[in-house]
This record gives sequence, structure tokens and C-alpha cells, in this order.
Amino acid sequence: MKIAIGPSSFAAASTAPLERLKKAGCEIVPNPFGRRLTEVEIIDHLKGIDGLIAGLEPLNEKVLTQADELKAIARVGIGMTNVDEQAAAKLGIKVSNTPEGPTNAVAEMCLSALLAIGRNLVSCNDALHKRQWDKQIGFSVAGTKVLLIGYGRIGRRFGEMLHFLAAEIWVCDPYLSSSDLLLGERLVSLKEGLSEVDVISLHSGGIQQILGPDEFAVLRQEAVLLNSARGELVHEPSLIAALESGKIAGAWFDVFWQEPYEGALCNYPQVLLTPHVSTYSKQCRLSMEMDAVENLLHDLTRAR
Amino acid sequence: MKIAIGPSSFAAASTAPLERLKKAGCEIVPNPFGRRLTEVEIIDHLKGIDGLIAGLEPLNEKVLTQADELKAIARVGIGMTNVDEQAAAKLGIKVSNTPEGPTNAVAEMCLSALLAIGRNLVSCNDALHKRQWDKQIGFSVAGTKVLLIGYGRIGRRFGEMLHFLAAEIWVCDPYLSSSDLLLGERLVSLKEGLSEVDVISLHSGGIQQILGPDEFAVLRQEAVLLNSARGELVHEPSLIAALESGKIAGAWFDVFWQEPYEGALCNYPQVLLTPHVSTYSKQCRLSMEMDAVENLLHDLTRAR
Repeated sequence: MKIAIGPSSFAAASTAPLERLKKAGCEIVPNPFGRRLTEVEIIDHLKGIDGLIAGLEPLNEKVLTQADELKAIARVGIGMTNVDEQAAAKLGIKVSNTPEGPTNAVAEMCLSALLAIGRNLVSCNDALHKRQWDKQIGFSVAGTKVLLIGYGRIGRRFGEMLHFLAAEIWVCDPYLSSSDLLLGERLVSLKEGLSEVDVISLHSGGIQQILGPDEFAVLRQEAVLLNSARGELVHEPSLIAALESGKIAGAWFDVFWQEPYEGALCNYPQVLLTPHVSTYSKQCRLSMEMDAVENLLHDLTRAR
Repeated sequence: MKIAIGPSSFAAASTAPLERLKKAGCEIVPNPFGRRLTEVEIIDHLKGIDGLIAGLEPLNEKVLTQADELKAIARVGIGMTNVDEQAAAKLGIKVSNTPEGPTNAVAEMCLSALLAIGRNLVSCNDALHKRQWDKQIGFSVAGTKVLLIGYGRIGRRFGEMLHFLAAEIWVCDPYLSSSDLLLGERLVSLKEGLSEVDVISLHSGGIQQILGPDEFAVLRQEAVLLNSARGELVHEPSLIAALESGKIAGAWFDVFWQEPYEGALCNYPQVLLTPHVSTYSKQCRLSMEMDAVENLLHDLTRAR
């Protein structure tokens, strides 16, 4: 059984997932480039392969049709926008993901970013490394109004953390009613939320734009925006305009319209930027990778 | 009633504390320098003053003896090492502090620093602002072993936050027995703790050295050290040696041996540095300043 590895970082935190595959009798074909594979490269990579441990490489109909031996794809992560699931089903390729793995690590990363912005960690640290003692007053999570847009696994877990730190939690999610919320949380419309809260955090699925020019127009002054979900949820030119005008006082982006990202946000020191690493903690990677390996072995066993 | 203001940042988050003093009929003499006053300056500042809202300016016997009208000192904060309390008592000057105010903000700042170090926020952000897409794997708080040295108000509150984020909590405090701990927390000796945990966080009172050469010798490899308490608790040359050898993989210092600090730690990018701002959140400043104002008004009323 030949297993190809997609994600360049697979087994970086621990070799346990590779050992599990070897113990199951698999031959492993690592990612030969140490980065995300292009369409041409993944077509080549999948020749003679039975199972793929998948990252975000393009697994469209063209790629899957040419993967003659492929029986199962196990995505390390949640998002499936890079996988043509219909084509896979037609070709009899089993597809799985790891919906539970990232929840805690992503929520923790959101908290990390919010605290870093609130307490001016980056600018304080930069100044003091230049021997400038510049005391700045920030804000605590306690008492801060946070709007969670999307209230699935990650939004909910982040909400629990914010709740514990005594934030005021507002939720906007068209699929919810008030009875789905925790005590003290408040269900609002998007525009009501945007015009009132201190911090907005995106947790919705899909890639449809949520914050466009109309939404930035109603946003309150000096808001903070957190995006750990998808770049496409935010209209980039409107965001840049809001940074220029000071309407957005601070932001964190871990996801982008194009990755690797080298766009205009890089010019704004008030924007905290991380390279799509919300799930990049040792504990989380290991748990997601082990889940993906088990999913793959399970699907390959069924496929035989 | 003339009230002098010591801290340069007083009322920066909100003018409510000044309004409260004015409403009580006080005349306010602001800090004329916008920075911490020296001995000579505070002697001059206190001439004809009835009450002082105090920061960290030196309030030693020499200063207090020359403050003929001074009846009360209200420290904005906990630490009283800058106030000669014996001299104040002898001179009939009432002294107060705000022990409750900083707890949540300091614990939150400790969490903020731990998450920033664990998830490589500073180096990721620096790289991406230079358009370098450098995905690094960090660690989650979940499952991380944290040693709290000192388990007073702040240590305990930080412990609660860590508990909620599923860390393993070890406590070292000579004044405690196991029955003082929360379920799942573990009371250990200093050396046992240092040799085993991933993260060490200092929360003890006083200024007596806790981590000297002998303690660094037993420390485990690649430990992370957090100091929001006092610079003096750590032997600076031993810390620098541990950074050089990689024994300390990451650290956060908000307090220093001398402040403003411009010493050797500034040379180490793996050390997160903040300029003694653990209590510098809007919410915390306002609550501490209001507490100090009420303490001062109370003591001045009693003194009349």
C-alpha cells in the first residue's frame, strides 16, 4: 500500500503518525518539495499511490481523474474547499477530514491574538528591544464586547474562553436561535453587532464574503478584527481603507486571499500577521495527524 | 485639600478619578514631568500637599520627613517597596494600596505572554511583515506543565485561567499545604518543579532571589520562564547564561532589576519584553485609580 504525504509539515511535531503508517505495512512517499504542491506536481505525486494524507494542495477533478490507484484521501484539517468531493465520489475515492482536531488550538490562537492586540505586546516588545521604555495602556478581555460571526465548534470554544475571562459575548449566526446560546450571550444581526462591539471575530464556514463595503460602513470606530477562518470573508480593499482611516484600530489575520501572502496588510504594523498557523501547535498537529492516519487506514481497509 | 499625583499615567484611561477628587473639593497638582519623579523632585512636589496618589517614586524617610502637610499616601498598585511604611507610621501619615485591582489584569497579561511565546506570535508576525511565509509549530497551553512559584492572588487567578485551558498546574509555595490547592494541582518543592515543568511563572512577593545559579543548574532543558513579579527574583547573569546555552528556550519579562531597563535581555529576540505594563489595561487602571482615590479620601477624612 503506497501512501503519499501532502502537507510539508506532516510529522514535524512527532514521528508517531509515520510510525503508525509503517506499522500498518504502508510504504510512505513524502512531499518532495517541502512546500504546498501545485496541480502539476500533485498529479505526478499521486502516480501509483493508494492513499493520500492531504493538506491544501489542489485535488480537483483533473487531478483525481489521473490518480488511477487512489482509493482514499485523508485531509489533515477541516476545510475541504481544495477537494472536489463530487469528483471523488464519482471515482469511488473515499474522503475524510479531522473536524475535532483543530477546535481547541484555533480557539486558543484567537485568544492569543486578542490578548496580544489588547495588551500591545508587539509594539511594547519591539520598543524595549530597541531600549525604548514606552508604557502603553491597552485593554483587558474582561468587559470587552466581542462579536462572534459564526458559532460552530471553534466560535463556541473561543466563546467559552472569552466567557471565562469575563468578556461580553455577542453572536451573529443565521442558523441559530437565542436558545442555542450560553447564559449571558446575545444573538444579534450582523449590522447591529458591527456597530456596537469592540472586537469582531470571524468563525463562519465557506468562502462567501461577509465584510464588504456596506458592512465596513456601519462598523464602529476603532474596532478590532480577528480572522482565523478564511481570507475571502473580508473584502480586502475595504479593510485597507478602514486601516488607513483608523476605523480598524487593530487586526489579526491568519488566513489570506492568497497564500503565501505578500499583499498590502504587510505594510500595516497595527495588523498582527501569522502564516495560517492556528493549528500549528505540537499537541494539535499530533492529534490531527493521528486522526487523519486512522481515517486513511480505515477507508483503505474498507476499499480493499 | 491639595492632592499631588505621582504616576505619570494617572487618569490616562479615563478622567473619572480626577473628577471624583474635584467633586470632593480637592485641588489637584499633577505630575509636572510626565515620568517617574526622583527623590529631589518628589520632595519639591510634596510641598504643601495633603494627600499623595502614589506610583513608584521614592517615598523614603528623607522625603516623608520634609512633607510637612502630608497626611495620606494612596498607592495605585500593590507593591510598597518604594514606601518607607515605618517612617510614615512614625510621622502619622496613613498609607494604603489597591491589593485587589491588579489581579485579573496581571494574570491576563501572564496568559497573553505564555500564549504569544507558545504560538510564536512575535517571530511569525515579524517574518510576515517582511513578506516571509514561515510556518512554525509552537505549543498549546493544553497539556503544558506550568510551575507557579507563589500562589497568592495573582498566581491563583493565573492558575484558574491555565486550568480552564487544560494545562497541568504545579505549585511551589512554602506557605501552602496540598489542601490549599484546586483539584488536579500538585504541590512540589522548587527543585522538583524546576527539573520537570515546561513553563515556570514567578508570582511570589518580596524581592529575595529565587532563581540563582543553583536553581538554573537543575532547570530542565528548553524551559520557558515568565516574570511579572520582580526582576530581583532572578539572578540576571544566570538567566543570560541559560539563554546563551538554550536551556531557556523562551522567556517573558515585564519587570527588571532596574527600570527603565536597557540591559542584556534586549539582545535576545527569544525574550518577550514589556515595560512593566501588566496592570496597564484601561479596565484595570480605572479600577485601581478609583480604589486609590477612595482610599485617599477615606484616610484624609479620618486624618482631619
